[in-house]
Amino acid sequence: MGRVAAHGGGAGGRVTITEIARQAGVSVPTVSRVVNGRSDVSPGTRARVEELLRRHGYRKRPAASPSRAALLDLVFNDLDSPWAVEIIRGVEEAAHGAGAGTVVSAIHGRSGDAREWMRNLRARASDGVVLVTSALEPTLHEELRILGVPLVVVDPAGSPALDVPTIGAANWSGGMAATGHLLSLGHRRIGMITGPARLLCSRARLDGYRAALEGSGIALDESLVVPGDFRPESGFAGCTTLLELPDPPTAVFAAGDRMALGAIEALRGRGLRVPQDMSVVGFDDLPEVRWSAPPLTTVRQPLADMGKLAVRTVLRLTRDEQPDSPRVELGTDLVVRASTAAPAGHRLS
Amino acid sequence: MGRVAAHGGGAGGRVTITEIARQAGVSVPTVSRVVNGRSDVSPGTRARVEELLRRHGYRKRPAASPSRAALLDLVFNDLDSPWAVEIIRGVEEAAHGAGAGTVVSAIHGRSGDAREWMRNLRARASDGVVLVTSALEPTLHEELRILGVPLVVVDPAGSPALDVPTIGAANWSGGMAATGHLLSLGHRRIGMITGPARLLCSRARLDGYRAALEGSGIALDESLVVPGDFRPESGFAGCTTLLELPDPPTAVFAAGDRMALGAIEALRGRGLRVPQDMSVVGFDDLPEVRWSAPPLTTVRQPLADMGKLAVRTVLRLTRDEQPDSPRVELGTDLVVRASTAAPAGHRLS
Repeated sequence: MGRVAAHGGGAGGRVTITEIARQAGVSVPTVSRVVNGRSDVSPGTRARVEELLRRHGYRKRPAASPSRAALLDLVFNDLDSPWAVEIIRGVEEAAHGAGAGTVVSAIHGRSGDAREWMRNLRARASDGVVLVTSALEPTLHEELRILGVPLVVVDPAGSPALDVPTIGAANWSGGMAATGHLLSLGHRRIGMITGPARLLCSRARLDGYRAALEGSGIALDESLVVPGDFRPESGFAGCTTLLELPDPPTAVFAAGDRMALGAIEALRGRGLRVPQDMSVVGFDDLPEVRWSAPPLTTVRQPLADMGKLAVRTVLRLTRDEQPDSPRVELGTDLVVRASTAAPAGHRLS
Repeated sequence: MGRVAAHGGGAGGRVTITEIARQAGVSVPTVSRVVNGRSDVSPGTRARVEELLRRHGYRKRPAASPSRAALLDLVFNDLDSPWAVEIIRGVEEAAHGAGAGTVVSAIHGRSGDAREWMRNLRARASDGVVLVTSALEPTLHEELRILGVPLVVVDPAGSPALDVPTIGAANWSGGMAATGHLLSLGHRRIGMITGPARLLCSRARLDGYRAALEGSGIALDESLVVPGDFRPESGFAGCTTLLELPDPPTAVFAAGDRMALGAIEALRGRGLRVPQDMSVVGFDDLPEVRWSAPPLTTVRQPLADMGKLAVRTVLRLTRDEQPDSPRVELGTDLVVRASTAAPAGHRLS
């Protein structure tokens, strides 16, 4: 793929590929064909597009040389969770090891912020992008592709574009391990607080929970599955809903640690003890849940390792090498601490 | 001050100002005088230093122009605390608002990592540096000064160099507010778990605690002050020490939230309830302590705002403007939640 960037380039920093396509009166894929030197473009169209690219400061990016300072862009939707710092730590460490700087941005799910980020990315001639759990608009995906800046997605938020490598965690296996742990302690009524339905990771964790119940011959009770959005508030609300059922569960699996903390707070507020009155399992193993009260049993998601692998993958792409696999899942581990125990009155046989 | 940078510059990226001074057989300040065009250097020395600067790829940095993509470097010692993400959030937001990218690095307190970071900073021609709670070696300070890259320190770890602006929090007032809150609830024996003695912020919080006690006419009992290092483990150990005193306190002020979480875990492990058996106050107001069990009373340190102000200050310096003050402290606020109450058996009169 051709590598094109607007280095510096005053006015060039203000115009997108989409805008160039508009001004040339052609489609974005046509601009892409011109950039990539393909023959299936008419000479007139080619000349018009090339003139616009030149005028707006797009030009072939020089091949990577030791004289240029490498930069990788790490893009979050929001920087509002201790979750983020684990990924930053992994990305910074791997990028630093490769002599590259890590530029951290948040685009707040706003298309204006995303487009401004793209302009800045072009101006600083970034070498690659690691995108965390947030969907870019298709036009920005296309622009990165045309610029020849490789993209890797960590923990995809939905169906990723087919040609983008993704790094995830083994969410299904993690959901199955969390639920299996509760089953092995003797729990039979196990509630689940899910993540947002639009995220694939939420669906995979829920399916792992279902698979574990099925494997133990327990019919799924849909009333035990309540929605959450990963924020502690939703864990509080979800646990409250479960406690108000006519026949509440004896254990709850929260699909994220912060929801587990909210659930524990809901139990504490009602004078219920963890794990004597209710077992709680989380998902993530954020650094602070080792110090929740009680220390949280959870599924460790290797966030820093996911960040490191994303960097190694994006660096391979900058050298025009292919990743080992377009879709990698790193293993999750159950970490048993003090928030889970056998249900009250249960004898392990 | 002259602005000098090694843009790209193969071999130039590998040699420090100190090394240039060594090769020229002069002092680092002499190299600085040459760079800054001062007249108090002999012509022979000037020629020798200029030749070395040229050979190693140092050259006058072009004046900031709209065509160059601005970059700010945000440097941590370690990226291992949710504390970090709050500062990153503030810095990214302010930098983004000014059209600058934020390059995040960790130097792990290792001089090798710090020097490598400096080489990369030069190669990417960064516009300014925000340094968080970590002391740079004097030679690196000097190198930044010679490069003309402005530096602002957030929450200084010790006595900062006199010509570096620092952004801190009102640590003394915060320590006083935390202790005053416990006094107002009726506590008279109040323990404190301090931060590392080498950090100024630790000293200021401890002095605030002492001032509040003194203001209430309570003599300081030195056995109630135990050392910590901001990690939860040290809060656990410190609280354990306090509980083993012949006459333990009825409340404890931990100089950091993560130590407060460790203290709560030590209490829970002994079957003691918070706040019925012991009140606990933290310091920071990290996002997750709203969801600790119980929700933590703490002193809010405006970490994101401190990051924003650091960016505004460093940007002023890039324009050769002076900061409002070389040393700014942002206010802290007491946030009362559920981990504090009157001591057992106490009647508020």
